[in-house]
Amino acid sequence: MAVDDVIDALSEGRDARVELYKELHRSPELSMAEYGTADRIEQELTRLGLEPVRIGETGVLAIIDNGEGPVVAMRADIDGLPVAEASGADYASTATAVLDGETVPTMHACGHDVHIVSLLGAIEALLARGDAWSGTFVAVFQPGEETAEGARSMVAAGLVDAMPQPDVFLGQHVMPTIPLGTVAARSGPFMSAAASIRITVHGRGTHGSMPDAGIDPIVLASSIVLRLQTIVAREIAPSQTAVVTVGSIRAGSKSNIIPDSATLLVNTRAFDADVAAHLHSAIERIVRAECAASRSPKEPEIEYYDHFPLTVNDEAVTEKVRRSFDEHFGEHHVPVGAMAGSEDFSILPAAFNAPSCFWVLGGFADPATAPGNHSPAFLPELESLDVGARAILVASAPWLMRS
Amino acid sequence: MAVDDVIDALSEGRDARVELYKELHRSPELSMAEYGTADRIEQELTRLGLEPVRIGETGVLAIIDNGEGPVVAMRADIDGLPVAEASGADYASTATAVLDGETVPTMHACGHDVHIVSLLGAIEALLARGDAWSGTFVAVFQPGEETAEGARSMVAAGLVDAMPQPDVFLGQHVMPTIPLGTVAARSGPFMSAAASIRITVHGRGTHGSMPDAGIDPIVLASSIVLRLQTIVAREIAPSQTAVVTVGSIRAGSKSNIIPDSATLLVNTRAFDADVAAHLHSAIERIVRAECAASRSPKEPEIEYYDHFPLTVNDEAVTEKVRRSFDEHFGEHHVPVGAMAGSEDFSILPAAFNAPSCFWVLGGFADPATAPGNHSPAFLPELESLDVGARAILVASAPWLMRS
Amino acid sequence: MAVDDVIDALSEGRDARVELYKELHRSPELSMAEYGTADRIEQELTRLGLEPVRIGETGVLAIIDNGEGPVVAMRADIDGLPVAEASGADYASTATAVLDGETVPTMHACGHDVHIVSLLGAIEALLARGDAWSGTFVAVFQPGEETAEGARSMVAAGLVDAMPQPDVFLGQHVMPTIPLGTVAARSGPFMSAAASIRITVHGRGTHGSMPDAGIDPIVLASSIVLRLQTIVAREIAPSQTAVVTVGSIRAGSKSNIIPDSATLLVNTRAFDADVAAHLHSAIERIVRAECAASRSPKEPEIEYYDHFPLTVNDEAVTEKVRRSFDEHFGEHHVPVGAMAGSEDFSILPAAFNAPSCFWVLGGFADPATAPGNHSPAFLPELESLDVGARAILVASAPWLMRS
Amino acid sequence: MAVDDVIDALSEGRDARVELYKELHRSPELSMAEYGTADRIEQELTRLGLEPVRIGETGVLAIIDNGEGPVVAMRADIDGLPVAEASGADYASTATAVLDGETVPTMHACGHDVHIVSLLGAIEALLARGDAWSGTFVAVFQPGEETAEGARSMVAAGLVDAMPQPDVFLGQHVMPTIPLGTVAARSGPFMSAAASIRITVHGRGTHGSMPDAGIDPIVLASSIVLRLQTIVAREIAPSQTAVVTVGSIRAGSKSNIIPDSATLLVNTRAFDADVAAHLHSAIERIVRAECAASRSPKEPEIEYYDHFPLTVNDEAVTEKVRRSFDEHFGEHHVPVGAMAGSEDFSILPAAFNAPSCFWVLGGFADPATAPGNHSPAFLPELESLDVGARAILVASAPWLMRS
Repeated sequence: MAVDDVIDALSEGRDARVELYKELHRSPELSMAEYGTADRIEQELTRLGLEPVRIGETGVLAIIDNGEGPVVAMRADIDGLPVAEASGADYASTATAVLDGETVPTMHACGHDVHIVSLLGAIEALLARGDAWSGTFVAVFQPGEETAEGARSMVAAGLVDAMPQPDVFLGQHVMPTIPLGTVAARSGPFMSAAASIRITVHGRGTHGSMPDAGIDPIVLASSIVLRLQTIVAREIAPSQTAVVTVGSIRAGSKSNIIPDSATLLVNTRAFDADVAAHLHSAIERIVRAECAASRSPKEPEIEYYDHFPLTVNDEAVTEKVRRSFDEHFGEHHVPVGAMAGSEDFSILPAAFNAPSCFWVLGGFADPATAPGNHSPAFLPELESLDVGARAILVASAPWLMRS
Repeated sequence: MAVDDVIDALSEGRDARVELYKELHRSPELSMAEYGTADRIEQELTRLGLEPVRIGETGVLAIIDNGEGPVVAMRADIDGLPVAEASGADYASTATAVLDGETVPTMHACGHDVHIVSLLGAIEALLARGDAWSGTFVAVFQPGEETAEGARSMVAAGLVDAMPQPDVFLGQHVMPTIPLGTVAARSGPFMSAAASIRITVHGRGTHGSMPDAGIDPIVLASSIVLRLQTIVAREIAPSQTAVVTVGSIRAGSKSNIIPDSATLLVNTRAFDADVAAHLHSAIERIVRAECAASRSPKEPEIEYYDHFPLTVNDEAVTEKVRRSFDEHFGEHHVPVGAMAGSEDFSILPAAFNAPSCFWVLGGFADPATAPGNHSPAFLPELESLDVGARAILVASAPWLMRS
Repeated sequence: MAVDDVIDALSEGRDARVELYKELHRSPELSMAEYGTADRIEQELTRLGLEPVRIGETGVLAIIDNGEGPVVAMRADIDGLPVAEASGADYASTATAVLDGETVPTMHACGHDVHIVSLLGAIEALLARGDAWSGTFVAVFQPGEETAEGARSMVAAGLVDAMPQPDVFLGQHVMPTIPLGTVAARSGPFMSAAASIRITVHGRGTHGSMPDAGIDPIVLASSIVLRLQTIVAREIAPSQTAVVTVGSIRAGSKSNIIPDSATLLVNTRAFDADVAAHLHSAIERIVRAECAASRSPKEPEIEYYDHFPLTVNDEAVTEKVRRSFDEHFGEHHVPVGAMAGSEDFSILPAAFNAPSCFWVLGGFADPATAPGNHSPAFLPELESLDVGARAILVASAPWLMRS
Repeated sequence: MAVDDVIDALSEGRDARVELYKELHRSPELSMAEYGTADRIEQELTRLGLEPVRIGETGVLAIIDNGEGPVVAMRADIDGLPVAEASGADYASTATAVLDGETVPTMHACGHDVHIVSLLGAIEALLARGDAWSGTFVAVFQPGEETAEGARSMVAAGLVDAMPQPDVFLGQHVMPTIPLGTVAARSGPFMSAAASIRITVHGRGTHGSMPDAGIDPIVLASSIVLRLQTIVAREIAPSQTAVVTVGSIRAGSKSNIIPDSATLLVNTRAFDADVAAHLHSAIERIVRAECAASRSPKEPEIEYYDHFPLTVNDEAVTEKVRRSFDEHFGEHHVPVGAMAGSEDFSILPAAFNAPSCFWVLGGFADPATAPGNHSPAFLPELESLDVGARAILVASAPWLMRS
């Protein structure tokens, strides 16, 4: 088949791509500040003969117009994380960045460098075998996935006008939960909606020996934490998947001073818009009621950030992709349930009202011992670079490949 | 009476002492780092003709041997606090210090500068009127009261061998709770025993979307906070005075990462040794049990610090002091209950097995509107410098003054 | 088809069956005390020419041996509930029974009377059209479903020896969640495993004004209730279906007496044996740890009762049943997810190591307004008697009906 | 002294009084239903030559007018409790009564039978030695102390018009906390103000497997219980004596049914009217806020009952009583702090605007092992009958006895 021809072409630039990957892995940049990474991607696309376009500050767009036929868009996210790498690789990151005024180490702890190089590999192969396919392939290198800002920022910066209307929008993520070499997709809700909420509740500070002279915000915050547990336990249908996590609680600095306020960082997950809405309304209800129970002197501050949409795979498109995976990956096309994580990918196809499919690929030999995403030890096998490129070609095949 | 003679002498150095007070107020130093303050005190004592001795790094001892008679020791604490002054005074502190690696503003927010200058005033007057009294007056300038380290450090540095055995050990504190110009003392338990406890409980970190893959230390810490409320509410006799305050809770930094551990800073107060012991055993019991409830993978760390003894005034000594206060302060000698705060003063008389009396003096015209100790607005009236000096002379009178 | 012949025969005894149903509905009996109900069933079976056998106190078995062929067993549960009927029907229950020494009203609030009469209808039709089918049909009238005692009791009383080895074991339940006239089944886990747990925790009683003289079991029990919420919220994978409900809490009787103990009744649900095991171990862990936090003077009592197994439908058998439903019910064969409720049905096929299928049938015209099972208003439409009988015949068809 | 004369007279009817005591102890009656007890008291007073008057249903008044002089009123409360006696005495109660429709055992578990017989003893002695004293002694046998109804009921029934204006109003209680033979009184707040509150919070019932379909009132009630602990722990000054006890929590009856509501019985104690008011306002605030946190569908019901006033002993009167105790009880007059219990006694003197004094007497040899008031084992030594009578005579002496 034609797609096999294109896949064969992957061997050509492989060694250079591994080097590029190591270079990227060494120098990750934080969300919405991927200036060097975007430059490097542009450089590479230019080297391959394309004319990349910056979309916003750090988004990059490249279009391969290869004659009549459908338009397939493929997105790769490109940002790193404020994590200190402990992978032990000789190409481990030594980079740092400034975050909220503090210098922090940075790391590609979520494999976005794999995504970049896989997409560049697919592009290289498509360019090398132009006769095997027909249509338009659009590569979208997206910044700021980790903070849910990047997809929105590319749309805001004019992505829709900068590229042809896609017939299908594709995306992928490397995962530790399925074995190296495998791919998996699922129709319908695939990755959860997520939101982060910064909640500050107010007490009234006083000396620790005179609690009656103040209002204790730590007792208040702790009551909120326990009450929040009842949302998933009591208010959401047991058959629904929903998560309310308090990831951070901070108040006070001395044992004998009751502080003025406490701050919680809360994260929610849901696979259904109504459930997500219920979670948020329940959180706000509980926060306000517990403030009343404590006679808090001031309204709580409740600020949403990092808002990820639900990732829902289009049924027809996903059926096509999965059939193509079956043909080319065989038993390496594995089943998968809904994933706990979240993505801002869906914002891109939504901007075009285009159907989409997002899949995952294995990055580690043994899921049982693989480190989780965002772990300091997260280091996918180099082989995943090829698997990622192949997956892009195979997923695109139903639209682009000559039979 | 003789003591009136000595009191009259206070007028002599008054203006210079006010200037010295403003100088000290401008340049507070943190506990156990009062190098400049101790130097300045020594300088002043030398100017008055005494031969001060350093006890440890920043403690200062001065002895006035004025012939036959009892030995009266008087302690003044000398350390400042990491508070940013907002008193509005033209002599407000602009000093900073390094605390745990961070640069912080410092402030005499607990009036220890008043204590220093009051004691220097009393010394100056005693020296000026040596014929009015007989015996030995020992001035103990003690560092590190705020952290409960200073009294212990002076004892460890040889205080007992450096001075004669006192017949009585005296101490005082300026307070916003009684009016300017008044003094107050109380026999028996006067200031509470206090302890601080740093408690770290362990969970197991994981991504916020997969709570089942970890153990949530924030839910654990919050459960502990709520359970700790039941100690005072249920386990201590309602007629007892006891406090358990969680002054700080800290865990995690991102909404979507469940952290590995949480740290609580807890403060306890009690006016009875059995009650204090019960508080501590109950806190430990609850922390360990809640860790078990959460299947915490690791023993909690429970570390005591800032351990203040109960301040108990000797009955006979206090009776003498109060009678002298009655005579000299009249209606400005006011009644007082047990105080919520804590002191490490008692460690000094305990080292000598000497009876002691600790009293308080008013620092502000109107207790109803006065700022609390440790408040950024804490600024006693300058008049309190004289009141403090007079209180020392009057309290010492039963032992030292010729009749 | 042959099964249509048999279904036609349902019209013959219909009016009498409606009367029988009303009679049963008027006189429900509690679990394991269904003496009158069992007698009435036996009477009816005898009237139809069968020779029913008592299995245990109140179980009834009837076998129709109709020549060569597979053995199909069908179970109907027969017990009522301690609920005061408020259905408004002229045949509403006025019966009472003695429960734990108290006289309580009883009601067929879960439709088991529908199950009895549906099975009798199917038997009547099978007997009337013996030439349309071949094989053995075994009717199992089971007591004590509501308390999870009945299936076990029939097995203990020798059910396995009293009937031939079944090729398939069938069961059904009338539900308000799908419309009247419809049936639904689902392969795999269909109804949850459930268990009830009676937990008594001990404090030490005292006068309410002297909490320190006792140990407060109400604070202890309340802490347990809140901590139990964290099991589903934090310890079980969000994608799993699990429930921990505290359905009853009881302690004390006077405001000013702290009682000696508190009793919780807890109910768990899970669709996975590991999840169920985790729920129970977590509940026990939390109860014991909270007792330790309260320094409870005595081990808690933790007693399991009403233990319902997971109801798992055999894949091959269910496929056959569903295909038969498709043919005969057409669009009235509706899809269904896993149900929240629980059943002790599975204990019967498990005793024979026989494959089984359990389905549901609609009892109310409009699921949106239908009362829930166990509600005082639960009154399925009379038409459901026929639907239930038809469902039994259709489900049995793949094994019994001549083609 | 004259009072010794009167005390001597106690020996005269002692044996008969012990028999009467045993008779009363065997047949206790519940609050406001002390018909038999009141009859028996009247009978005894009539036997002694007095003309007792019923005040209300079960209150009894007797006046000894013995010439010129002050009027001393002495109150004895007469009701028993719904407790099953387990004292082991041969005169243990075997009585029962109907309470809220249930038959319950009754017991003099708070020693009111001692109070009755002590007062009768004092009356007998006063009558026997009329020449030793002068003035008017008024005996008030009051029903319903346990439920705080009795004093109010006697006032409502016209007590003020039925007796002369007292110069002093006295009362006493037998206690296990001081040794047999001793008496104790204290000026100022002596017994706490108390109130009981019945709180019903509403959820929405549902099947236990579908928590999302309802609102869980048990989680709500448990949250309230834990939050109530923070009132004493955080909102009341540590030096204040305050108690908030949840003595009963009741909700639901089956493990698998989430009930509609939960009921708490709460009891408060305070020695200061402002503190009591704060307790009640904080309880209401917390209950309402927690209902909001649970989105309770209906306002909670909050009903106060059993409202006991603060028992405050008049300073001048108590000084007189204590001096008399010193003279006659010597070292058996012991010091005492404020007591945790509550009394409706104060309502009587308040009705007359008369000064009052309430004291306690020891009922058991060893306070360390004595059972608490309301305990099934509460059985004061018979000797306390005499101690109680003596205490009345001694306390009255400053007003009544000739010198």
